[in-house]
Amino acid sequence: MQPRSTRSSTRVRARYAETDQMGVIHHANYYVWMEVARVDLCETMGFRYRDMEEKAGVLLAVIESSCRYINAVHFDEEVVITAWVSNATSRTVSFAYEMSVNGRHVATGETRHMVLNRLLKPTHLPDQYRPLFGLPVGPENRIG
Amino acid sequence: MQPRSTRSSTRVRARYAETDQMGVIHHANYYVWMEVARVDLCETMGFRYRDMEEKAGVLLAVIESSCRYINAVHFDEEVVITAWVSNATSRTVSFAYEMSVNGRHVATGETRHMVLNRLLKPTHLPDQYRPLFGLPVGPENRIG
Amino acid sequence: MQPRSTRSSTRVRARYAETDQMGVIHHANYYVWMEVARVDLCETMGFRYRDMEEKAGVLLAVIESSCRYINAVHFDEEVVITAWVSNATSRTVSFAYEMSVNGRHVATGETRHMVLNRLLKPTHLPDQYRPLFGLPVGPENRIG
Amino acid sequence: MQPRSTRSSTRVRARYAETDQMGVIHHANYYVWMEVARVDLCETMGFRYRDMEEKAGVLLAVIESSCRYINAVHFDEEVVITAWVSNATSRTVSFAYEMSVNGRHVATGETRHMVLNRLLKPTHLPDQYRPLFGLPVGPENRIG
Repeated sequence: MQPRSTRSSTRVRARYAETDQMGVIHHANYYVWMEVARVDLCETMGFRYRDMEEKAGVLLAVIESSCRYINAVHFDEEVVITAWVSNATSRTVSFAYEMSVNGRHVATGETRHMVLNRLLKPTHLPDQYRPLFGLPVGPENRIG
Repeated sequence: MQPRSTRSSTRVRARYAETDQMGVIHHANYYVWMEVARVDLCETMGFRYRDMEEKAGVLLAVIESSCRYINAVHFDEEVVITAWVSNATSRTVSFAYEMSVNGRHVATGETRHMVLNRLLKPTHLPDQYRPLFGLPVGPENRIG
Repeated sequence: MQPRSTRSSTRVRARYAETDQMGVIHHANYYVWMEVARVDLCETMGFRYRDMEEKAGVLLAVIESSCRYINAVHFDEEVVITAWVSNATSRTVSFAYEMSVNGRHVATGETRHMVLNRLLKPTHLPDQYRPLFGLPVGPENRIG
Repeated sequence: MQPRSTRSSTRVRARYAETDQMGVIHHANYYVWMEVARVDLCETMGFRYRDMEEKAGVLLAVIESSCRYINAVHFDEEVVITAWVSNATSRTVSFAYEMSVNGRHVATGETRHMVLNRLLKPTHLPDQYRPLFGLPVGPENRIG
């Protein structure tokens, strides 16, 4: 069983297309980086996010997102994103992120997700994914 | 019957997020603007693109795209995009675009599309859309 | 003097490029829409954001952003974004946003900004912009 | 001296945010990938693109771009982008790109660039960059 505190580390290199005329990375792109880190975290936790969507038919739709920008990121800098599950129930999962460039802290973020089925209706995390999120396998799954 | 030469005119205001550190609009965004113009052109031609996808189950997947950038576009400038069908068969459709800012020509583009079904397999334009693209309604549709 | 409670209303039509494979608008794009609304709000308040950057040499860099997603937005839907200044000092400004589609509430957001000069160093809002944000014109501007 | 035929190989993993509701990567993102590959190619050729902008004050502004999409790319697939200089003069440079996923060819592209100075006016490639592009070092640089 994977403890909830598993952390992944993702490296993205800031793209030219991600800059804006202020000369730094546009703030909306940090959410894309968090998503990239989230996908890596799933792998570190023991599954591929795309398999969860394709095979289990379960999606983690974002219902809240936030970011604090501490230092600007520039084109071509390598951003290290640490990600982990900050909270999980069978219906919602939250992820937290810390971003740094050369050891300098540049941003923190959080996203909260609702577990949806293919019809985009709320459901429960399928049994096989629960231990990975530190959740007990249980009967509530049958109601979802 | 809608002649092939129908032209639509779309206005987009260049977004801050679309700029890059060169201080002008990043070149990849012109393709997004062409797409916005294409959707408007469909309306001008007599149908909604989303209905074609949702109801007729037909998609126009891009198989070629090109753009010539003549003058830079800046944040907050209003870009007028003229779009028209430059070529159409029952299997492929091409669109052409001219973009200007305050009457100054800024770019031209072209996109070529393949008609796909929901499974992303090649098909023919359904009968009801053919006249809109200047095409005869015919039996080949049954083979697709 | 412009009261702090000025509200602007912006309409954006959800773009195909803004959708993701979940079949709805990707969450990062809401931040771009908020930015579009912010630029419109500035106009409603009596100035153009690009003039503030170009002529006054003052930038409003995002230091915090957040969004709550209440209902999904689909391709081609028209999103109405109401924006207003939720807080302002001479050094930081916050904006709030409400987004709806056909009267149905789809999201709320907030962004917090630091006033920076062209060298991306913290400064104060120039005198001419202070009344627009409901702030007194004062001597602190000289220290910044 | 670096021959013109230097090739670089770049790996990008298709991001969720880059998908669209067709369930595949949106066509505009290929241009961002080509840009990522171009930056890598510069490194392979012996310089950092950001140094050319920051230190030499020279920009390679895109004046033409094109892409042919051969097979769809899906979320989480790793795309290998091979890039090389297809043509170069002291005033314009062209790059070509081939993209593949697991050895399957997915797209080809080309971009043409004009050499600009910081004021976005046409200039010549500075002497130190010419050999890298297979160009002779010459007096025309003084006219630019």
